[in-house]
Amino acid sequence: MARFKLIVEYDGGPFVGWQRQDNGISVQGCLENAIFNFSGERVTCFSAGRTDSGVHAVAMPAHFDLEKPMSAFRVREALNFHLKPRPVAVLSAEEVGEEFHSRFSARSRSYLYRIVNRRAPLALGAGRAWRVASPLDVDAMNDGARFLVGNHDFTTFRAAQCQAATPVKTLSALSVRRQGDEVLVETTAPSFLHHQVRSMTGSLVEVGAGRWAPEKMQAILKARDRSACGRVAPPDGLYFQRADYG
Amino acid sequence: MARFKLIVEYDGGPFVGWQRQDNGISVQGCLENAIFNFSGERVTCFSAGRTDSGVHAVAMPAHFDLEKPMSAFRVREALNFHLKPRPVAVLSAEEVGEEFHSRFSARSRSYLYRIVNRRAPLALGAGRAWRVASPLDVDAMNDGARFLVGNHDFTTFRAAQCQAATPVKTLSALSVRRQGDEVLVETTAPSFLHHQVRSMTGSLVEVGAGRWAPEKMQAILKARDRSACGRVAPPDGLYFQRADYG
Repeated sequence: MARFKLIVEYDGGPFVGWQRQDNGISVQGCLENAIFNFSGERVTCFSAGRTDSGVHAVAMPAHFDLEKPMSAFRVREALNFHLKPRPVAVLSAEEVGEEFHSRFSARSRSYLYRIVNRRAPLALGAGRAWRVASPLDVDAMNDGARFLVGNHDFTTFRAAQCQAATPVKTLSALSVRRQGDEVLVETTAPSFLHHQVRSMTGSLVEVGAGRWAPEKMQAILKARDRSACGRVAPPDGLYFQRADYG
Repeated sequence: MARFKLIVEYDGGPFVGWQRQDNGISVQGCLENAIFNFSGERVTCFSAGRTDSGVHAVAMPAHFDLEKPMSAFRVREALNFHLKPRPVAVLSAEEVGEEFHSRFSARSRSYLYRIVNRRAPLALGAGRAWRVASPLDVDAMNDGARFLVGNHDFTTFRAAQCQAATPVKTLSALSVRRQGDEVLVETTAPSFLHHQVRSMTGSLVEVGAGRWAPEKMQAILKARDRSACGRVAPPDGLYFQRADYG
């Protein structure tokens, strides 16, 4: 038996999310079918993060085991061949030890949230960003973001359907920067609650638009109340960027 | 009568190109229909450049005339409302003098060609870039590009169906740079021949991949022979970036 680690890029638009589900096509299902098509083996493909429907990945680590001996190069080529025409691409494949687990070995995950800050709707960025018409003050957003960094009870930023054992998480980094008409929110943590990044981003947009003072981020965090949260940002702008191991 | 100058963004994927044609949906047709829908006026919408099917625009200047008085703000809002759900967005609209013509007043046009230089197929970049698997040497590409800058007969880089009066054009700039796994080709000229940017890019990729010496760019230019040209790069990676006026 050999274990393969993949780095996968995908456009989340056509999928019900990473995880295999009965109600539509998933990234996991596409990968598992592609693996079956070239190896004849029915395997489970694990990932560092389970993204929601519409959420993209720039570099999602994943892994699976194969009985049949095969080079990592052939695994990558065969996967990319059998994944067509789905918007899923295996950027790299390497053989790793049995102790590696894409989910449990990951020390941290990083996400990017991409906002296009302009009045006009999105043409090139449709499905790939959130268009926010109100001019956003990035300095105010960073002032607000600072209150969330650290170890906190993130109940306010947690979806009702979240399955995590505890709402207490450590947020390692959360920062906002402007690049032309784009406003980019970047965040890193050992792990996130369900909808946490989109909930934090939606609330930071309230601050950036001037509807909330930066200090309100601290107040809503302390409220530990889902109803205190701002609008949950749409999935289109969210990208799983990377996971760090070891 | 008032003349309006627009700056338009579009995803070229679903269109037969900028120009109105009988065989499908065009960007020009979408804009003219949207203008009719809010004004009741049948107008011609001109642009700085007539992009091919699949070619995108980041900021395409265009203009049209309206009899009915209307503010530029309302023109932009009404256009964006009526353009839905097509991937065409009016970034700005302003009233300009009758002497302005988006095509004839433009002093220069700039294009970007986006290559993703990797073995894996494109997922997030599908339809938005050209995937080139061979590692590209950007320095060699720039060495080759230098031979094309200036006033030359560009017959080698001109499509058979090109309608320009002469193949002699002045190329103001042509440069190549790497950004992560992307290789970006940028070029500016007062005007371009049909397929010129895609033809130059395809030939530069031959140089970058090491199949041609940089000097071969000079040889094929001097040949003034379409058959000397490299592969024409696909439309997916081409973006009309801007036109400069006055």
